[in-house]
Amino acid sequence: MSSIAGMSPKAAREMIRNNNWVKPTSGVSHGFIQANLAVLPKDLAFEFLLFCQRNPKPCPIIDVTEPGSGIPALAAAHADLRTDIPKYRVYRNGELVEETTDVTGLWDDSMVGFLIGCSFTFEEGLLKNGIPIRHIEENCNVPMYTTNIQCIKAGRFEGPMVVSMRPMPKKDVVRAVQVTSRFPSVHGAPVHIGDPASIGIKDINNPDFGDRVSIKDGEVPVFWACGVTPQAVAMHVKPELMITHAPGHMFITDLPNEQFAVL
Amino acid sequence: MSSIAGMSPKAAREMIRNNNWVKPTSGVSHGFIQANLAVLPKDLAFEFLLFCQRNPKPCPIIDVTEPGSGIPALAAAHADLRTDIPKYRVYRNGELVEETTDVTGLWDDSMVGFLIGCSFTFEEGLLKNGIPIRHIEENCNVPMYTTNIQCIKAGRFEGPMVVSMRPMPKKDVVRAVQVTSRFPSVHGAPVHIGDPASIGIKDINNPDFGDRVSIKDGEVPVFWACGVTPQAVAMHVKPELMITHAPGHMFITDLPNEQFAVL
Repeated sequence: MSSIAGMSPKAAREMIRNNNWVKPTSGVSHGFIQANLAVLPKDLAFEFLLFCQRNPKPCPIIDVTEPGSGIPALAAAHADLRTDIPKYRVYRNGELVEETTDVTGLWDDSMVGFLIGCSFTFEEGLLKNGIPIRHIEENCNVPMYTTNIQCIKAGRFEGPMVVSMRPMPKKDVVRAVQVTSRFPSVHGAPVHIGDPASIGIKDINNPDFGDRVSIKDGEVPVFWACGVTPQAVAMHVKPELMITHAPGHMFITDLPNEQFAVL
Repeated sequence: MSSIAGMSPKAAREMIRNNNWVKPTSGVSHGFIQANLAVLPKDLAFEFLLFCQRNPKPCPIIDVTEPGSGIPALAAAHADLRTDIPKYRVYRNGELVEETTDVTGLWDDSMVGFLIGCSFTFEEGLLKNGIPIRHIEENCNVPMYTTNIQCIKAGRFEGPMVVSMRPMPKKDVVRAVQVTSRFPSVHGAPVHIGDPASIGIKDINNPDFGDRVSIKDGEVPVFWACGVTPQAVAMHVKPELMITHAPGHMFITDLPNEQFAVL
């Protein structure tokens, strides 16, 4: 295990806060939950939380800050969401206006931070079970697709589910369902196995987000609900101000992955 | 199976709406999720939803209405929470002021209805596994106790967890953990097994809510988080208006129990 993988979440966040790690967090602090960030003004917070509650597969909530606070008390009581992510994206009225490493100046009394589970957790479970993860093997981002599966609406928040795809040998599919079912807080079981067209994916080799990966002869594409969904849905509402992590640049929590297994 | 147990949720709700069933719903529409009700003004809704999200064992959310609507779109799209519960309790500033069978007149544009999972679902799972349920055998209410386990605070909502207790032979305890772990949406696995004192229960024969049940020689008391918790916690906030179901008089959803099993 590299020193980065073995680094404590606290040490990793300090490195990040001091801008000594301004890059994706894949492989940092092995065994701890990493999370997507979405920060919204308080007047949208109830509807967004309700949207996440109604759509737990794409939007599994890990923690929510008190309005105005940057401290994720349950996920990492001594961290600060305004500084401890390697790179942020700032959106105004749905348009990306800035990438930055510190959003302290933007986080006024009305802002509420949402941490949403990320697939890194269940990927660790798959790897431990000898199930290959193609985008890790090919050293690229996971391929993601917009589907024809509609999320359940909540107030102003609505839109299609985005899924991530991992191809695997047929023999591994049942085990992959079992392993990921243990972790409903980080997307849980797949939403679809096999035929991409039946969930509205036209070209499996042309993902809407992330990178194309090879699918070998005899392999089955397996699809999981993806944490890009809530950001995509929030973007459509065009909030005056919205802050997210930059893709791949996640928040590292103090929560061990295994603590989130239901069995 | 009695005709009441085999009745569809739709037919049961119609019977209830017409005031032809003004009594507890235990045993009605076997196999479908029944839910606790808490109705709060919109200005408390975000904090209460956040409290539930932070305390999923005592407060597993099944559905939340849009503000002002009495329709639980996900739990029973053609039902109405203002009429379809056999008996309601109305609280003003934390004081019980009325029991009634219809709250249509009280449900203004600001009210938000929360349906919270109930232990009836996992009790069915226990019975199917041959695990006896004493309060059913003794035809009384489940014993419930206020513990020294503090819920995680959210805004104005805070307080101790209330638990329900079911005594069982030692040999059944492991299976009871397995069976109820499958259902995190209806309180899930026990929060404690054995010694009542270690979770702050002084006298197991003197429950804070519900009825005393016998504990036979060699039996172990097993404790689950209880849906009374969110009501007790909300009461402390003394909302101007709060509506709940009367104890045991639950809302019957269209959702099959098995749909809520994670595995």
